[in-house]
Amino acid sequence: MNKINQMENKIEQVEEQEQQIVNGVNVTKLIGTMDAIRSKPILSKFNFRAKGEWIEGGHNQITINDFYGAGQTHTRSQPFVYDEDEPAVLLGEDHGANAGEYALAALSSCLTSTLIYHAAAQGVAIDEVETTLSGDIDLQGYLGMSENIRNGYEKVNVTFKVKSDAPKEKIRELVELAQRRSPVFDIFTNPTPVQVSLQE
Amino acid sequence: MNKINQMENKIEQVEEQEQQIVNGVNVTKLIGTMDAIRSKPILSKFNFRAKGEWIEGGHNQITINDFYGAGQTHTRSQPFVYDEDEPAVLLGEDHGANAGEYALAALSSCLTSTLIYHAAAQGVAIDEVETTLSGDIDLQGYLGMSENIRNGYEKVNVTFKVKSDAPKEKIRELVELAQRRSPVFDIFTNPTPVQVSLQE
Repeated sequence: MNKINQMENKIEQVEEQEQQIVNGVNVTKLIGTMDAIRSKPILSKFNFRAKGEWIEGGHNQITINDFYGAGQTHTRSQPFVYDEDEPAVLLGEDHGANAGEYALAALSSCLTSTLIYHAAAQGVAIDEVETTLSGDIDLQGYLGMSENIRNGYEKVNVTFKVKSDAPKEKIRELVELAQRRSPVFDIFTNPTPVQVSLQE
Repeated sequence: MNKINQMENKIEQVEEQEQQIVNGVNVTKLIGTMDAIRSKPILSKFNFRAKGEWIEGGHNQITINDFYGAGQTHTRSQPFVYDEDEPAVLLGEDHGANAGEYALAALSSCLTSTLIYHAAAQGVAIDEVETTLSGDIDLQGYLGMSENIRNGYEKVNVTFKVKSDAPKEKIRELVELAQRRSPVFDIFTNPTPVQVSLQE
């Protein structure tokens, strides 16, 4: 190993030591991001995007690729493509989970990540998180058979299972905090303005 | 081909002729489903489910398999497994779309399927549907940096592009109807009760 290589290795080691990683989240970068936002609040503005293409019957294909955030547009190396469909009992061919199930997936992942990131920011190491979600829906709303029954979920239940050496009270606090900070929990529990237009 | 085979083929042909299929949706079965619900409303009650497992950092794996509906539990032949993660700028490793993008995917697919099914029920043939969605979010909410900024999307825009021989007015009507009937549009635009508990 020559002298330059040795120096490079040394610098990498120092850089790694300086980065505080908790729960796989780079807390040093997280704090750096918050500092950057404080001095330039526009950096916190994001715009997420999705494109949908109807295939047949209940089957749709959704493509997710670019988004805007931290002052620029980001494009993935390749797009994420997801199939959504209805199961046979809802007259589909089951090419993927349905929209209601995708919404639960979004909620599960958002609550979990919010808990993990905020735990990391507090220096709380988490070993495992599992969530179990279920949503009750009466399809008479969707089918237009009753104006007294809503279209969406009447009630959603989320159960967290968290393994960590942190005190139980801290974990309870983090589960509360996840609800207070999660974007998708906010979308479920509060009204979000949605503007729908038809391109003619 | 023996006589029994001929008879079976004949019956299948008659059955196919009797099934009215529009937009890939079996309208005969859709009407049958609504008749069944009218005589036994419990059949319209569904319970959708998701299980989440935290992997590392912003990476979660969501498994969707069984659900309850039309009076029984249904299990898929194999579960749907989805990866959700954050992109590098949000300190993840981009193993999949993030939760906010999944929520847009759910909205896209739900509005589209609602339009397609209701068009089918009205006998309106649709050739193509494309949706483009975007959601504005300010991460100061998520990061707890401002109590005046909400955590979720401040605004979501959905643009429909529909190809059909039906009159423009009918398509506009169906885009309106999709918003009035879509379960995930309801979840976005109205509050949904979400009960979160910690298993101890």
